[in-house]
This record gives sequence, structure tokens and C-alpha cells, in this order.
Amino acid sequence: MIVTVSRKAHFNAAHRLFRPDWSEEKNNQVFGKCNNPNFHGHNYELIASVTGPIDPDTGFVMDVKILKDLIKSEIENALDHKNLNLDVPEFELLNPTAENIAVVIYNRLKPHLAQELSLKITLYETPRNFVTYEGLNQQA
Amino acid sequence: MIVTVSRKAHFNAAHRLFRPDWSEEKNNQVFGKCNNPNFHGHNYELIASVTGPIDPDTGFVMDVKILKDLIKSEIENALDHKNLNLDVPEFELLNPTAENIAVVIYNRLKPHLAQELSLKITLYETPRNFVTYEGLNQQA
Amino acid sequence: MIVTVSRKAHFNAAHRLFRPDWSEEKNNQVFGKCNNPNFHGHNYELIASVTGPIDPDTGFVMDVKILKDLIKSEIENALDHKNLNLDVPEFELLNPTAENIAVVIYNRLKPHLAQELSLKITLYETPRNFVTYEGLNQQA
Amino acid sequence: MIVTVSRKAHFNAAHRLFRPDWSEEKNNQVFGKCNNPNFHGHNYELIASVTGPIDPDTGFVMDVKILKDLIKSEIENALDHKNLNLDVPEFELLNPTAENIAVVIYNRLKPHLAQELSLKITLYETPRNFVTYEGLNQQA
Amino acid sequence: MIVTVSRKAHFNAAHRLFRPDWSEEKNNQVFGKCNNPNFHGHNYELIASVTGPIDPDTGFVMDVKILKDLIKSEIENALDHKNLNLDVPEFELLNPTAENIAVVIYNRLKPHLAQELSLKITLYETPRNFVTYEGLNQQA
Amino acid sequence: MIVTVSRKAHFNAAHRLFRPDWSEEKNNQVFGKCNNPNFHGHNYELIASVTGPIDPDTGFVMDVKILKDLIKSEIENALDHKNLNLDVPEFELLNPTAENIAVVIYNRLKPHLAQELSLKITLYETPRNFVTYEGLNQQA
Repeated sequence: MIVTVSRKAHFNAAHRLFRPDWSEEKNNQVFGKCNNPNFHGHNYELIASVTGPIDPDTGFVMDVKILKDLIKSEIENALDHKNLNLDVPEFELLNPTAENIAVVIYNRLKPHLAQELSLKITLYETPRNFVTYEGLNQQA
Repeated sequence: MIVTVSRKAHFNAAHRLFRPDWSEEKNNQVFGKCNNPNFHGHNYELIASVTGPIDPDTGFVMDVKILKDLIKSEIENALDHKNLNLDVPEFELLNPTAENIAVVIYNRLKPHLAQELSLKITLYETPRNFVTYEGLNQQA
Repeated sequence: MIVTVSRKAHFNAAHRLFRPDWSEEKNNQVFGKCNNPNFHGHNYELIASVTGPIDPDTGFVMDVKILKDLIKSEIENALDHKNLNLDVPEFELLNPTAENIAVVIYNRLKPHLAQELSLKITLYETPRNFVTYEGLNQQA
Repeated sequence: MIVTVSRKAHFNAAHRLFRPDWSEEKNNQVFGKCNNPNFHGHNYELIASVTGPIDPDTGFVMDVKILKDLIKSEIENALDHKNLNLDVPEFELLNPTAENIAVVIYNRLKPHLAQELSLKITLYETPRNFVTYEGLNQQA
Repeated sequence: MIVTVSRKAHFNAAHRLFRPDWSEEKNNQVFGKCNNPNFHGHNYELIASVTGPIDPDTGFVMDVKILKDLIKSEIENALDHKNLNLDVPEFELLNPTAENIAVVIYNRLKPHLAQELSLKITLYETPRNFVTYEGLNQQA
Repeated sequence: MIVTVSRKAHFNAAHRLFRPDWSEEKNNQVFGKCNNPNFHGHNYELIASVTGPIDPDTGFVMDVKILKDLIKSEIENALDHKNLNLDVPEFELLNPTAENIAVVIYNRLKPHLAQELSLKITLYETPRNFVTYEGLNQQA
């Protein structure tokens, strides 16, 4: 029996949307007030969803406490109370849009999961805007 | 990398569930208190979810501000503070169930999206009842 | 020990904001799109909060099941799936603003509570707009 | 047109995670404080999602009132205000993890749905932990 | 300037409402299905609200991290994943209604706060039922 | 009849908690990771609650559309997508704690309200931390 187990977590961070290789004019046109050079910020709500078979010994797909600790060590410790542009290596050259943050979180968590488990990331940037990413194998 | 971007929006409207070609008795039997001839109403919560590749230039699947404006112009302006049965052409002959409203919203938004983007509509009629619709190509 | 016990409930209804003794022009100026003559509607979320001493026999201020049944019989049966202007006697001459609906709900519930209990009504008209009313004795 | 109709419901229950055939030491290691022999409990939030074609006569995939009544008779009456381990037959030998509870709920509801309708169960054990199950035919 | 600082927390627990000095018949009449002798349970959502002057040095009424740690050590460690009737000394003779749990939480937290700070406890037993308690000095 | 009308709004911003006249060591000790020199950020949820008599002509305490526009012009335009420390004059010398932000918002809104209306500000810094402020006249 295949079940998905989801865990919600939270981090808050500052960011700025812009491309250093674009003019200020073009950055403002594309990114609007998200291009504030002094940064703005969000409370990001993260849902990590892990899909796989129920282990008949435990009744768990994955112990949610292990998933919680993994999110803490790999994501919260790296992103919480940080400036995404300045403090997080992946965003040195990558624009920290919600889409790209979801991909970065996926790539940080996936290697720590058992091979047979698939992962989906849902990331709320605000209560009204959110994104989901399920990895490259969903692209075909 | 394929990502889904979702935007929440809100409109409130009056409606009545009934079929003019059915007897009052049959309408009451099928639609119960939703068949109040004086109408009742809801705060509809809408989630429009757009799936497609991340544009490497911007880091966006679709600028959520454009999606927000599209929902405003195509959906909120047409449905907010309206009587669905009397004020919205699609429901002149179509029963405004949550299912049908979701299909109407899909059909109003889809033509405005780039060809390679797919769309899913989630519509909350109450905090406890909601529907989702992803278009005809999901039927096979 | 004085404690407040609160119960959430829900009803949905159609309404229209207007004064029959005003011109259509003045009604539109004051009430805007809430003056749609075909009505619009809302999911109203109601919180009834009852304050009083803990009964040492039961540990209850008031059995929340009794409060729930009271809201059902006095409020939901009267307002749910109704047109407030046309189906509810109190609003025959009273504009069904959130403020006035809260007062009407208070006046319907209060006589059914034990004398020593005070009542506060919180009414959400939308997830972003809500009102509270605690009775006339709060006015001094 | 294929649409999914979802209904939220609620029940609260006590449970304990453990295997009677394991030592207390192993149960504590695997299930931690969830292995409290005096039980602990949760408010479970359930979402039952039913997918199928819109009935052109009614505009419904399935009358949500019927779905609500089905959840009441098959799930709430059996699980609400119960001790899952002691009061619910399915968990006499089955560990009442969220995963297993979702499967039990699926198995209780599915036979009552029309053949052409598929079912997905989402079960929140806490506001931060939830699981989803769509039946055996999703396993391939 | 007087400000209130609030912190939300969470614990889940089993409980049973009954009085050992009452007959089973009377317990069932008063407490209904909450009197299940095998217990049931809840996810309790707690809001601890502390009111006092803003410290001009820090801009804090009270460092919310200290409040969070206090809730963890005094409340969560004592009540989370517990059976309130069997595992928590205060409820050996006291019925664990939401009202009484709120008073117990207040009495556990208040002595740890600076003298000039007042405390209000809000406790959600379910998403639809909650209580508030502000201490004995609110009774006059 | 005295009623309170509340309107929810939203802004997101970057900030840093620190005092320039304190050593880095002391700032870290008091403000912890909130003292990140590169800033972090939040989605602030604001509730502005206005209390006064119901106008018998309109049934409004205050037209919530006017309140919404006031929050937009006085608060959102000034704080949304901003760095509170660098972009908002009030915080040039004032630590932007949730407490102080609530006071600043109160002071910006209150002069625009009719004399007989009182104001309460509730500000969520995260879904778990929030503050309330009702003005100096509540201090006695």
C-alpha cells in the first residue's frame, strides 16, 4: 500500500529578486517591488511530502520524526533567519524565486531519503502564493 | 524543471441550485435548501494552479502578478458580488454547482495562458466543501 | 474562576446592502457593489463566546454541546441557506450589514443563556472582515 | 468532464503506537512518546476526495450531502471519541499510525461509492503531519 | 506603552470527562461520549498571551523565545503525548475539561512571569471549541 | 450599540533586531539569529480593529472599504516589500520588534479615524507569534 506522508515546517528569510546582469530598469520592469535593493522578506511555509510503501513492521512510510529532523538540519538551519541572496550558496548566482527555492529544497532533501521514496515540495511564499516541485523525473 | 505556481483569490456571490425544467418537488428532493428561490450565497476561495517549466531568465514559471491580474480581470470582475444565476451568462442554463463553477473558471482562464502551461482549478464553496478540475485532457 | 467558552459555527446566506428610502444613486455611492439588486452572498463564520464561573460539579462554564445546539436551533435554522433581506424578519427594515447581523444574533441567543453568563458575538463576513458585539451593557 | 469533490470532516480519538510482539525497549526506541501505555490523542481532520464525471442532470459528481452522511455513518460513528486501539476492530492487530488509519478509512468508504468514482483520503493527525492514500490501484 | 505578546503552542493528549463519585448513568447523561472509559483525545492548540510595558532597551514586552521555552518546559513536557487523567497530577481529582485545563496551564505559567506581567490563556480543544482564562483577578 | 469592525491586511518586509549602541556580542546574546546583519524577513498579517457606535443610517461602524483603503495608503504603501530598518523613517532609531511595529502602525492609522472611534492593532510576525496594542489610554 502506497501512502504519502507530509510534514509542515516553517522558516523566515529576506530576499531580493533581480539579475545582476540586467539593468536596474529591466529588473524593475520584471521584478517590480521585489527588486528592492534593501531586500524584503517572507515567512515561508514548507510541506515536504514523501511517498512510498507502508513498512508492515512499523506502519510507517517514514517516521515523521526523522523527516522533521531532516527538514531541521538540511533546510531550517540553512535558510531560517537568513538572507537568501547573501547567506545561501545556491542563490549566489540563482534568483531566489519561490520556484527556485522549492527546487533547492528538493535537491537538499532528496539524497537523504531511501531510494524507493519519492518527494514533493510545496512552498508557500505568502498565504496566497505557493509552488510545488516533484523532481526532474516528473518532467516527461 | 517543471513547477506548479498557485495563486489564491476570493469572490463572494449568491446562487441557487435548481433546474427550471424540474418540478419544485423534484428540485427540493435533489437540491434541498440549496434550492431556496430567494437564493443563498458563499465566499468562494479560488486557487488557480499553473504548471510549466521554469523560465531560466526570470526564475518564474509565470509571473504571479500577471496570474493575479488575470484572475482579477477574468474571474473576480465577472463573479464577485454577483448573483451567479442572474448575472453570469454561463449559468443562464447551467446549474451553478461548485463543479460547474470550477469548469467555467477553467474555461475563462485557460485561453489567456501560454500554450505550454497547464491549469488546475480548486474552488472552495465552504471551508468544508471544495472541488478541483484540470481540463478535458485529464479525462482519458 | 471566570472562564470564557467559545463555539464556532457556520452559515451561508445571500444579502444586499441598501436602504429602500434612498435613491439608487445614493445606495450605489454608499454601498457600492454590495448594493447588487440580485443579491450576493457569504459564508458567515460565527463565534459565540460565553463568559461565567466554572461549575465545580462539571468543570464546565456551559456544556458546549448545549451551546452548539442553541446556535443550531436559534441561528443556523433561521439564517443558513437564506436570503437575509427576504427570509429573515429582523432585516425587513434593517440593513443586513455584518454589524447588524451580529446584533441580531446576540439578541436571539442571549435570552437562552443563564442570567449570570455574558455573551460576545464574533462574525466573519469574509476571511478578512469581521465584527464583534458584546451587548448594550458594554457601551458605558 | 472529470472533477474531484472533497469534503472535510473531523473526529477525535485516543491511540497508542506499539507492537505487542516487541519489547518495551524496542517500542520506545521506534515509537518514542507515541508509545505511552496510557494513550494520547488527536483531533483528526479528514478530507475525502471523490473523482468522477459531472452528472449532466444535477451538475454534481456526487451530492456532497450524501458524502457527508456517508462519512458520518461509516467513519465518525466508528472513530469519533473512541480509543482506536481498544474500540475499533481493525486496530486490534494493526498499529494505528496515520498511514494505517487512512487505509482503514479508505476501505470503509470505497465500497459505498459508485463503481466509476475513485477515492483519495487525506488525514491530518496534527496541523503539521498528514498522510494521503488513493487505494491499491495507485501502486503500479 | 502596554502591549500584549502572544505565542502559540501545541500538545496532544488523551482524556476522559467523568466524576468517579457519580454513577455511570449520570456521567453518561452529563458527559456523553466524552465519558468513554477507554479515553479519547485532542490536539490542543494553546495561546499564551502576556501583557505589560515595552522594555525601551530591547523593544520587547518579553522575549518570545523565553516564553516559547517556558511553554515547552512547563506545559508541553508535562502534557504532550500524555493521558491527562492518569499522567498529570492536577487532574487526579479534577475533571480535565477545557476550562480546567486552561486554569491548570495558567497556574503553571504565571509564577514564572515577571510580577508586572499579566497572563491570558486561550486553549483550543478542537478547531471549533476553545476557552480563555485570565486569572482570579479578572473575576471582580 | 457599540460594535468592533476588524479588517485583515498583509505586508511582507525584511528587518533586523539590534541596537547600534550595543556590542555585537550583546546584540547576539539578546537578539540571537534575529540579529543577522544581512537581515531576515516576515509575512506580517495585520488586523486593524475599530470600535464605535453603529451609524443608524448605514448600519456601519465604519465602511470597511474605507478602512481597507486607509490600511493600503498608510501602512501597506509604507511597509510592504520594504526593509523596515533601512526604508521606514520610524525605525531609523527604533528597534523593529513586533511590539514597536504595532505601535508605529497604530500611530499611523489613529489620526485618520473619527474621534469617537478607538483602535486596536493585532500584528502576526509569524503564524505562532503575534502582538496587540490599543494605544496609550489603555495603560492606566
